[in-house]
Amino acid sequence: MHKVAVIGGDGIGPEIIDSGKIVLEAAGEKFGFDIDWTGFDIGADRYLATGELLTEDDLKGLEKFQAIYFGAIGDERVKPGILEKGILLNLRFYFDQYINLRPIRMLAGVETPLANKRPEDIDFVVVRENTEDFYVGIGSRLKGHEKKMLEVNRDLYSVKFGLDVETDSDELAYQIGVISREGASRVISYAFDMAQDRKKKVTSVDKANVLSDVYGLWRDVFLETAEKYPGTSHEFTFVDAITMWFVKNPEWFDVVVTPNMFGDIITDLGAMIQGGLGLAPGGNINPEGTSMFEPIHGSAPKYKGQNVANPLATIWAGSMLLEHLGEKEAADRVLQGIEASIREKIVTKDMGGSASTSGVGDWIARWISDS
Amino acid sequence: MHKVAVIGGDGIGPEIIDSGKIVLEAAGEKFGFDIDWTGFDIGADRYLATGELLTEDDLKGLEKFQAIYFGAIGDERVKPGILEKGILLNLRFYFDQYINLRPIRMLAGVETPLANKRPEDIDFVVVRENTEDFYVGIGSRLKGHEKKMLEVNRDLYSVKFGLDVETDSDELAYQIGVISREGASRVISYAFDMAQDRKKKVTSVDKANVLSDVYGLWRDVFLETAEKYPGTSHEFTFVDAITMWFVKNPEWFDVVVTPNMFGDIITDLGAMIQGGLGLAPGGNINPEGTSMFEPIHGSAPKYKGQNVANPLATIWAGSMLLEHLGEKEAADRVLQGIEASIREKIVTKDMGGSASTSGVGDWIARWISDS
Ligand SMILES: CC(C)[C@H](C(=O)O)[C@@H](O)C(=O)O
Ligand SMILES: CC(C)[C@H](C(=O)O)[C@@H](O)C(=O)O
Repeated sequence: MHKVAVIGGDGIGPEIIDSGKIVLEAAGEKFGFDIDWTGFDIGADRYLATGELLTEDDLKGLEKFQAIYFGAIGDERVKPGILEKGILLNLRFYFDQYINLRPIRMLAGVETPLANKRPEDIDFVVVRENTEDFYVGIGSRLKGHEKKMLEVNRDLYSVKFGLDVETDSDELAYQIGVISREGASRVISYAFDMAQDRKKKVTSVDKANVLSDVYGLWRDVFLETAEKYPGTSHEFTFVDAITMWFVKNPEWFDVVVTPNMFGDIITDLGAMIQGGLGLAPGGNINPEGTSMFEPIHGSAPKYKGQNVANPLATIWAGSMLLEHLGEKEAADRVLQGIEASIREKIVTKDMGGSASTSGVGDWIARWISDS
Repeated sequence: MHKVAVIGGDGIGPEIIDSGKIVLEAAGEKFGFDIDWTGFDIGADRYLATGELLTEDDLKGLEKFQAIYFGAIGDERVKPGILEKGILLNLRFYFDQYINLRPIRMLAGVETPLANKRPEDIDFVVVRENTEDFYVGIGSRLKGHEKKMLEVNRDLYSVKFGLDVETDSDELAYQIGVISREGASRVISYAFDMAQDRKKKVTSVDKANVLSDVYGLWRDVFLETAEKYPGTSHEFTFVDAITMWFVKNPEWFDVVVTPNMFGDIITDLGAMIQGGLGLAPGGNINPEGTSMFEPIHGSAPKYKGQNVANPLATIWAGSMLLEHLGEKEAADRVLQGIEASIREKIVTKDMGGSASTSGVGDWIARWISDS
């Protein structure tokens, strides 16, 4: 019996999660385990009604689970940033989910916007750091001769910034990113460990030639870690260059490890080359705590309640969730179910089919039962 | 008579600049102007011999010119970051070249890694901010209980940061980005002005949902500027999302305006979709001062002196230089010459041809003379 927390969230979130649950339950039946789902009412509706993003109760409740199945958040009635930071990023930080794992893999039968690339050419993993860098939320906007002091405390560090603006220009904003040795080290080690079961090649992403302080430290830690894995090859790329190679030579990559912000950018690009956001899952992982699995797309409010959204990214995220819970065989079968639905063209409109959200989920669940 | 400063730089820099000069001279002859070139010995060799990156004399000398023709810098004997920051970025900052202009345009006959895209689908301009953001070079690395103060002065602002680390974690690095209202405003206005002669559509790039301070200000300035151009359509994209649309729907874009760091990333991706770095020019522009034109690729040290490097990006940068000097007709003819060389397959090996660096330059120069 596995206990899993569920946050459907906003827009199409609840629908795609429902499809995912049906598939995961079918996998459980097939492989002899039950899943006990506990839903949490978190998202824009509650925020608009009560002003609450994440409550103490939410966090205390969620913390009892090893895994959260997360739909999507985002709502046009709420200013950009509020829900993303108050819910999604807050969960990643609170549970110290320091690994954001994103497989970039083109499944058979999927179309890529790249010319002449086949599924065997696009099959790597991005390991994105998920708790530091420019995501720490330190910054301010200052007008005129204003003066400000701010204090920031985080688990990993305690830093005081004093800022004294003596300018006549009318407005100035600054933003601070932080990388710690410990923070870089744990995610880079995770990437090298992962490469041991793959092609033993790790590519690091940075911009150490310009943002030399944070990414200089990142690079040093990468090199030091690489030395502990003599049988594994390693290389650096600048973030600007890697966007080119994703498009031109995706077959070069095995495990790509990246600081948080660049990871955000290159995994969207990765999602596109593997066939689009409809097919891109992500895991926010704390190997010793509560992890969270989600499609990386947004809440697509305009399709809400229409049963037309593509649930495959969510179902794939469910497969990652099962693997995280130790159900490797079930996880593999779910992925095979996704491949079968693509092969048989039981897919939603965005992928050229005519199936509904629930239709795809039901079909894959049945395929698993029959398999 | 136009006086132009020349910095060949490192690696293949001098060779590709030589090809460019021959082409620009041919254009001058055709359209009735002379170019007087003044070379500056700046780059890795001098740095290794004397320790000098940019001297007072260099800057005083360069400041007399309206335009600099820049090859490339970068050398394997020098640690990453030293030459880039000490020369290239320093020139951009010193001359307050606040616009980094990068046409993303697929010329006829060029191959793109994208499926089903033709030259008419890939034809837009990226206007990258070039003096602020995370390129200001403010940051530090701190060990243990170290304490540090730093002071930064720039033309646009004067800021004092005090940092006091009280952590037991052994190492921490931070990096600070700054965006000013004035800095955002001047580049965004430039983008809207440019859109008036194009399809009247401006797309802004940011990550205001996470880096809300700097990019929140950027977004506000973008909206305020857009209001002054009621006949021009405008839209926001998040940086992660725009990498997807560059690959999937490049035909959507007309003028894209972006903060410095994201601009660095998306213009490399843009270079790739238009056919690769061998074909991507950039202009660093200060409309009232000294501007600088360069291929956006690096110095490719291993091809140095072999006369095999592709000079087309440099020749295209030369076309932008001529346009900047008011020689629009000559600039257009240079670009037509590039298109002719591609049509006739007088190109280097990277583009599937067998011509040499100088061979391509000579051929285009002759084509212009004969045209
Ligand atoms: C919604 C947003 C805050 C988030 C991020 O930037 O991490 C998203 O883009 C992602 O990649 O999961
Ligand atoms: C060489 C490097 C400092 C530079 C930058 O980051 O701006 C380059 O990538 C560019 O885009 O011109």
